[in-house]
Amino acid sequence: MTVILGIDPGSRKTGFGIIRLVSGRSTYVTSGVIRLPVEAELATRLGVLFASLNELIDEYQPTELSIEQVFMAHNAGSALKLGQARGAAMVACVQRDMAVHEYSARQIKQAVVGTGGADKQQVQHMVTRLLQLPATPAEDAADALAAALCHIHTRSTLLRTTATRTAGRRLREGRR
Amino acid sequence: MTVILGIDPGSRKTGFGIIRLVSGRSTYVTSGVIRLPVEAELATRLGVLFASLNELIDEYQPTELSIEQVFMAHNAGSALKLGQARGAAMVACVQRDMAVHEYSARQIKQAVVGTGGADKQQVQHMVTRLLQLPATPAEDAADALAAALCHIHTRSTLLRTTATRTAGRRLREGRR
Repeated sequence: MTVILGIDPGSRKTGFGIIRLVSGRSTYVTSGVIRLPVEAELATRLGVLFASLNELIDEYQPTELSIEQVFMAHNAGSALKLGQARGAAMVACVQRDMAVHEYSARQIKQAVVGTGGADKQQVQHMVTRLLQLPATPAEDAADALAAALCHIHTRSTLLRTTATRTAGRRLREGRR
Repeated sequence: MTVILGIDPGSRKTGFGIIRLVSGRSTYVTSGVIRLPVEAELATRLGVLFASLNELIDEYQPTELSIEQVFMAHNAGSALKLGQARGAAMVACVQRDMAVHEYSARQIKQAVVGTGGADKQQVQHMVTRLLQLPATPAEDAADALAAALCHIHTRSTLLRTTATRTAGRRLREGRR
């Protein structure tokens, strides 16, 4: 069993989603949004994010993190704020020895919706369908679950490719 | 005795400086630069920064962090990178229950050189003089020490102001 944490960090709120992978089957565990106290100082806000992720890691013991890669933000001010939240969130996982995997927004949308240009609503819709959720998760939680699903997809493809290669090699070796 | 950590975070290297404050006297403890493995992935780099700061905190037990406040970075790309390093560094201190104090570049230069428009060399020079260092520290280390000195200066001024106010109040109360 592998437990994967997906997060969608932001300076005001961070979406999270946890998916369990048992013999190739993805099962939804939990998801939600960590809201940071907007009136508090930066250090306090980042501390809340760090501590909340630590609690999640304590409770669900994920071993892999999937997070959207950011190439370029809209402007320097928002990039700095986003960066601070990303940095705090990533070290929360790294210091718990989780493997960190980054995927571009395009890769995540491609994996979940089938097209890199999908919008937020399509992502929410497909996450709900793929994980057979009784209700549509909030946007940030859906994005976090989508990141986790993208990692599971990429991970399985990699495993399958390796398996096929090994099988192919065995076949060739058998022929000798 | 109060131990103050100053840091000057960056995506490639983070300067640090530790100053001990004993009955109003600042004494240099250590300073240096944490270099992040540039070829490694982002999560690994941030993990190195987080772990290095944790080691420093373990060894010198600072209780207060002083860090330069960033209002606006040059462009979105560098702001994101700087933000990630800042976020990782700040949570390293917050999760060890350190009080975090932010000062603008102007405040730091004003406190150390006497003018908010001072350049890097002037900061290096004054840090070396104020702390009676045998050699000039590297630029990032000097900036970190300057941040720590600025906090000590602000802190002492605050303490003095409070003391004067208390004395004034006592005086007034005595007159009644």
